[in-house]
Amino acid sequence: MGKIVTKKNLTRKDVIIEKAAELFKEKGYKASGMRELAEVLGIEAASLYNHIKSKSELLHLICFEVANKYTAVIDEIEHKDISSLKKVEELLRFLINGMINHYQQVYVCDREWKYLEEPYLSNFQAQRRSYRKRIAGIIEQGIQKKEIKSIDAPTAVLIMLHAVSGIESWHRSKQKITAKELEENMISILISGLKK
Amino acid sequence: MGKIVTKKNLTRKDVIIEKAAELFKEKGYKASGMRELAEVLGIEAASLYNHIKSKSELLHLICFEVANKYTAVIDEIEHKDISSLKKVEELLRFLINGMINHYQQVYVCDREWKYLEEPYLSNFQAQRRSYRKRIAGIIEQGIQKKEIKSIDAPTAVLIMLHAVSGIESWHRSKQKITAKELEENMISILISGLKK
Repeated sequence: MGKIVTKKNLTRKDVIIEKAAELFKEKGYKASGMRELAEVLGIEAASLYNHIKSKSELLHLICFEVANKYTAVIDEIEHKDISSLKKVEELLRFLINGMINHYQQVYVCDREWKYLEEPYLSNFQAQRRSYRKRIAGIIEQGIQKKEIKSIDAPTAVLIMLHAVSGIESWHRSKQKITAKELEENMISILISGLKK
Repeated sequence: MGKIVTKKNLTRKDVIIEKAAELFKEKGYKASGMRELAEVLGIEAASLYNHIKSKSELLHLICFEVANKYTAVIDEIEHKDISSLKKVEELLRFLINGMINHYQQVYVCDREWKYLEEPYLSNFQAQRRSYRKRIAGIIEQGIQKKEIKSIDAPTAVLIMLHAVSGIESWHRSKQKITAKELEENMISILISGLKK
């Protein structure tokens, strides 16, 4: 049992969070243990507690890293000087790439957030609701500007977000198309589905 | 504790399966107990075992009822004398209505099938794979006949199936559009997303 091996520009804490996400994805948050995580990292459980206070802190870090990134991106996209349909496309590309490149974190954030402790739980839920409303808002602007067909915006959000989370099956499939092909195919279907 | 109350044309066994699906959906298959199910039904656990051998049999009945229905519908649709795009649309409408009207059963089948026991597990997995391939097959025919744009068919299947399972959020949402509006909105987005 030695030190945590870091790579690229990752700090030890980053490595711990990354491995925790892998573990939570694989076994579920409830069934995962700190001792198990220490084993995966090749360190003593005691050393792990030098970096992280609890399993609950790990879930909090994973979920809020994803949530903060998503909020930053929608902030940026909302203020761009492009059409609403293009905004939806940029957001979709961001979400698709998130599920492709940060699969475990996004997956854990998506499925296990309900185990967050208060006050984080309420805060996370509020962010999640607001995020969906802001996407629906962009779609509604697009409908008003006749770039997007007249549809129910929350239903469009539901389809988009669930289609993106379906990238889970792509990760598990044996004969995969490339990540770029996946992105272009999803954009092609979903964006032309919205276009007026 | 009395007799199981039946309604419409349901047999007692139907009522047991329906309530089991509700319970498995709510608590997860693993965490649900037969005693608990008996309580929900208002009968003694001993009476429950007159109708059903085990919890495992209930999961098997739920999953295969859904799987058999899905297989029957794709059999029927494949042989219809309509365009491939129309076939995809009919299938989508069937799937959407399944998630709207038989939410608990479809949800349990979708999420909890991994707890099936052999030989049912392997059989179910094979049916699931074959089902997805047959949908992809219809889409590929549509691409050849230039009714559907040139896309990766398995990605289109992934988007469709995950969008449909997103109807879960519709059930949970407070301000719902009607089931018919949901169906038409989903069809509008997904079918025009596929059209050439």
